[in-house]
Amino acid sequence: MKTKNYRKAVQSLLSQFSKDEKAPITHSIFTKAHAADIAEIISHVSEDRQLKVFDALDVKQRGDVFVELPEDLQSEFIEETDDQRLLALFKELEPDEAADFLSLLDEDRQQELLSELPQRLQRKFRTLLLYGEESAGGIMTSILLTVHAGDTVNMAIEQIREYKSDEIIINVYIVDQNFKLIGSVPLQNLIIADGKAKIEDIMELSPIAVNVNDDQEIVGQTVRKYNLLSVPVIDDAGKLLGRITMDDVIDVVHEEADEDVYRMAGVDSDEIHVDSGFAIARMRLPWLSICLGGSMVSAFVLQNFESILSKSMVLIAFLPAICAMGGNSGLQTSTVTIRNLTYEAVFHSNRKKLARRELLSGVIIGITCGFLVCCISLLWLGNIIYGLIIGSSMLLTIFFSTCTGFFIPIFFSKLKIDPAIASGPLITTLNDAMSAFIYLAMASLQLKYFGLL
Amino acid sequence: MKTKNYRKAVQSLLSQFSKDEKAPITHSIFTKAHAADIAEIISHVSEDRQLKVFDALDVKQRGDVFVELPEDLQSEFIEETDDQRLLALFKELEPDEAADFLSLLDEDRQQELLSELPQRLQRKFRTLLLYGEESAGGIMTSILLTVHAGDTVNMAIEQIREYKSDEIIINVYIVDQNFKLIGSVPLQNLIIADGKAKIEDIMELSPIAVNVNDDQEIVGQTVRKYNLLSVPVIDDAGKLLGRITMDDVIDVVHEEADEDVYRMAGVDSDEIHVDSGFAIARMRLPWLSICLGGSMVSAFVLQNFESILSKSMVLIAFLPAICAMGGNSGLQTSTVTIRNLTYEAVFHSNRKKLARRELLSGVIIGITCGFLVCCISLLWLGNIIYGLIIGSSMLLTIFFSTCTGFFIPIFFSKLKIDPAIASGPLITTLNDAMSAFIYLAMASLQLKYFGLL
Repeated sequence: MKTKNYRKAVQSLLSQFSKDEKAPITHSIFTKAHAADIAEIISHVSEDRQLKVFDALDVKQRGDVFVELPEDLQSEFIEETDDQRLLALFKELEPDEAADFLSLLDEDRQQELLSELPQRLQRKFRTLLLYGEESAGGIMTSILLTVHAGDTVNMAIEQIREYKSDEIIINVYIVDQNFKLIGSVPLQNLIIADGKAKIEDIMELSPIAVNVNDDQEIVGQTVRKYNLLSVPVIDDAGKLLGRITMDDVIDVVHEEADEDVYRMAGVDSDEIHVDSGFAIARMRLPWLSICLGGSMVSAFVLQNFESILSKSMVLIAFLPAICAMGGNSGLQTSTVTIRNLTYEAVFHSNRKKLARRELLSGVIIGITCGFLVCCISLLWLGNIIYGLIIGSSMLLTIFFSTCTGFFIPIFFSKLKIDPAIASGPLITTLNDAMSAFIYLAMASLQLKYFGLL
Repeated sequence: MKTKNYRKAVQSLLSQFSKDEKAPITHSIFTKAHAADIAEIISHVSEDRQLKVFDALDVKQRGDVFVELPEDLQSEFIEETDDQRLLALFKELEPDEAADFLSLLDEDRQQELLSELPQRLQRKFRTLLLYGEESAGGIMTSILLTVHAGDTVNMAIEQIREYKSDEIIINVYIVDQNFKLIGSVPLQNLIIADGKAKIEDIMELSPIAVNVNDDQEIVGQTVRKYNLLSVPVIDDAGKLLGRITMDDVIDVVHEEADEDVYRMAGVDSDEIHVDSGFAIARMRLPWLSICLGGSMVSAFVLQNFESILSKSMVLIAFLPAICAMGGNSGLQTSTVTIRNLTYEAVFHSNRKKLARRELLSGVIIGITCGFLVCCISLLWLGNIIYGLIIGSSMLLTIFFSTCTGFFIPIFFSKLKIDPAIASGPLITTLNDAMSAFIYLAMASLQLKYFGLL
């Protein structure tokens, strides 16, 4: 069974659904499809059919499909589902998924649902709900299976047998009498090891763990950096609380980067789940109005230099070039800087090195482009003074926008504001106004100097 | 052991090394540190010390640290290491890592190294080397352990015992007599199941697999979409060739998104590994010169409208605003479109829906911003005609740049050119020139119409 076929299958289902709005929804279509594919199909069919398709699934499938749905669809479905079917759905979910599920409900429904569960589970979920949805505690699976250093391999295996859960186990974690995490053993080593061997003889000591309050991005980066398929979650005292498997955070690892792409472009990453053009316009307009406001500053700058411009119209032709180059070189630097800041928590970056690197490159790029545009304008306008004005402005613009591109993100992260979301619009607007000002200031200075004003 | 402490430890080591260039390099410092951390430290110390630090590690550690190093450092170290120590290092690597390692060597050294290995391994690596480094075949671990449907659980477990490898096993894959993949069983289910049970009774049929020729990005997206901790690799005939665990592709999943961020900003993603400002300038200049060339087009446009501009200087003040808004709304659309194109191979997106969404939002945003800037200019210049000119140009600019932002990436992906790398510069420049043209065309038209020209 090749994924290629899988993809084809989904594609055909999708086109079938989008072509024929009335195509019959028999769950027989889905029995063979993967939950992730069904979820995708649901999020693609017309809104009035989405719930129909979901209901067409048999109970067993619903849980798996539900967790794969985009969050806005999840909450929508929850609202439109009565408590009994909600409970049935809930029972199909794994603990960490169930916790997310609960957090989508309002207080009352949460309590109702919980009250339906056995005491032990109730307690477990109430604790899970205490942690933020975005924290390690929010995405972890609380551990019910633990082994002690003194146990034999056979005892450990016996425990796993009794534990009987469909949550995937990759490592068995070893705790002391205070439930403090002291070691871990990969499942396969248990199989390979001699049954009578003591766990303490085959366990790895003090494995890498994440704190229950760590943000899920930290978890994602840790898992990625140390190539962990599963990571234990502990509290400040080192007590073992749960575990997170890589598949719980791979989306985090990915979306983390994805979100930055969007934020830097002034796009809300939730857009992916939005279909209405109006909604999107509403999401993008705030950012654009900031830019508009900013460009009014440039407009103001330009107006104040009108006298010079009117005396040397040719300068206007190169205005966009100066602004564009300033904006682009600023964008390059801010992008690199923002990416580096994102990973600093786990992947350490050397700021001094970065600063040296960026600013030096700014100077070099500035000189090169300045010289280039100076030659161009010289050939074009056949006037050395204009060549000097345009070239020197280009140099300064590029250098200064490299500086803003580097220092503004760092400044924001110091203020604990996400540099990605904050820098994008600010840098663009700032560089635009600055470029215009530099250009016209240089013009007036040099024109005066050469006695042309 | 909390990751927080880990991070602190690395941080202190880093600062120690960067502070005191002569700090003694005893591998005792590293015995407790994680390979990933040591690799990070190495890539941060001054270039002349990097190899020294690496050599200070004991043989066992070197392999783990080596694979964590950035590729440019890896090849550098390989060049500076003699064949004997290279072989020692090579023997520490896991099969898939060893294959990447070999691909870094030149033909002769490859053959030399291989000739040192037992026949069976030689054959294995020669086949691994046949696949592209970026393909599923290039990152997979070839499977030596397989189970047949007829085997009992105990037989399977016995095989794992004999297999004895430190490559992590998550699923055991079941093949038929032609070595065709027919099923899989999670390791833990083997433990839970009754020893005498038949594998065929507990195995999952036709598991999701990737094709050996799939690009690693496809593998990454598949693993992510289906939440697979381990995925089997098959050939076109469905024959089982190897497996890929999530930790082998999590970096791919991540860098894939990361690269797009960089490309869209006209930054080469290799920059991360580059320290010299000159090298960076060299990497960024090509893109900037394209933009410079493009903005010369805008300059040309402007020059041809000089007469109008000279007659109504006030228009100039709003030129940057028009260009900036066009650029920004274009960037928003292209970003979203490019992201969607990246995932289409596995995560299907509905282009018709996307087009409707983007273009509608373009119209709405255009009208809103057009009206806004019209009011502003009206208040500012107290002239309804200028208000109309500026407002209408803003509307058209935003709408058209939304179109370019949507259609150009799609056009490029049709040409099998990475839209991320291609669209960035093109869209920026195109939108700039287009904005300038629209603005001045609207100006001349309306000024003529109202008899002001």
